[in-house]
Amino acid sequence: MTEADKVILLVEDSPDDVELTRRALRKNNITNRLVVASDGAEAIEYLFDPTQRAARGRRSWPVLILLDLKLPRVDGLEVLRRRQADPRTQMIPVVVLTSSQEEQDLVRSYRLGANSYIRKPVDFQEFSETVRQMGQYWLTLNQLPRKTDGAGA
Amino acid sequence: MTEADKVILLVEDSPDDVELTRRALRKNNITNRLVVASDGAEAIEYLFDPTQRAARGRRSWPVLILLDLKLPRVDGLEVLRRRQADPRTQMIPVVVLTSSQEEQDLVRSYRLGANSYIRKPVDFQEFSETVRQMGQYWLTLNQLPRKTDGAGA
Repeated sequence: MTEADKVILLVEDSPDDVELTRRALRKNNITNRLVVASDGAEAIEYLFDPTQRAARGRRSWPVLILLDLKLPRVDGLEVLRRRQADPRTQMIPVVVLTSSQEEQDLVRSYRLGANSYIRKPVDFQEFSETVRQMGQYWLTLNQLPRKTDGAGA
Repeated sequence: MTEADKVILLVEDSPDDVELTRRALRKNNITNRLVVASDGAEAIEYLFDPTQRAARGRRSWPVLILLDLKLPRVDGLEVLRRRQADPRTQMIPVVVLTSSQEEQDLVRSYRLGANSYIRKPVDFQEFSETVRQMGQYWLTLNQLPRKTDGAGA
């Protein structure tokens, strides 16, 4: 299984932020395939819809979820709730990556099982460095159970 | 509040591993005060005993817990269980730092709310690099709610 098979699921509604994330990943040689869900409903569909999962085959689960909170249709907290309730997705690391400075968002995210919460820097250099450290930590240092290690259900 | 007031709680029964961790923190200029609990019972006492908490005053909660799993008296999984059950400690990041290669330990740790799971490298250089990345990630990049940000209950 190559890095390209290990999906990072980015849940982000802003096309600009999606593009920035792509650039930052590329700049830091993070070659995982990036799947973008542009709202919480798409993220939930990607994770749980049996048709979508069957189509993915071995690439059944992402190895990392980067989650914005303020999203149309279904917000990030609901994505956390759904992931938390399912033992299959509970073990996929979720980093909340948001511009929200609200204390309540932090508290709720952790209560709903987010592994980590990072404030999105505005400056691209800083954002790129954040993505580098995040990638290094979650894709290399952190260990996942084999089942969720991008190797299917 | 200085870095020295922001406690890292290391739950580790091996004096050699405690010493290695101290060296690695020092080498990487991580100046947080290190509190060592040599088994799970001590860790639980440090976190929850009202007398101990009162004595700490503003330094009420650690900003990071590094947790070994195989411990005398009370094991690491029980520490995770207790931390998870209390909304005050639920938000303190816990990194399981262990030499265990057992899949079950990984799965159980995540189920019990561990934020991250890292296999302890045997080689000191590698261990030091792991501690550097871990410190950078959890002490700088990751955001905590103000209440658990080492600033009291």
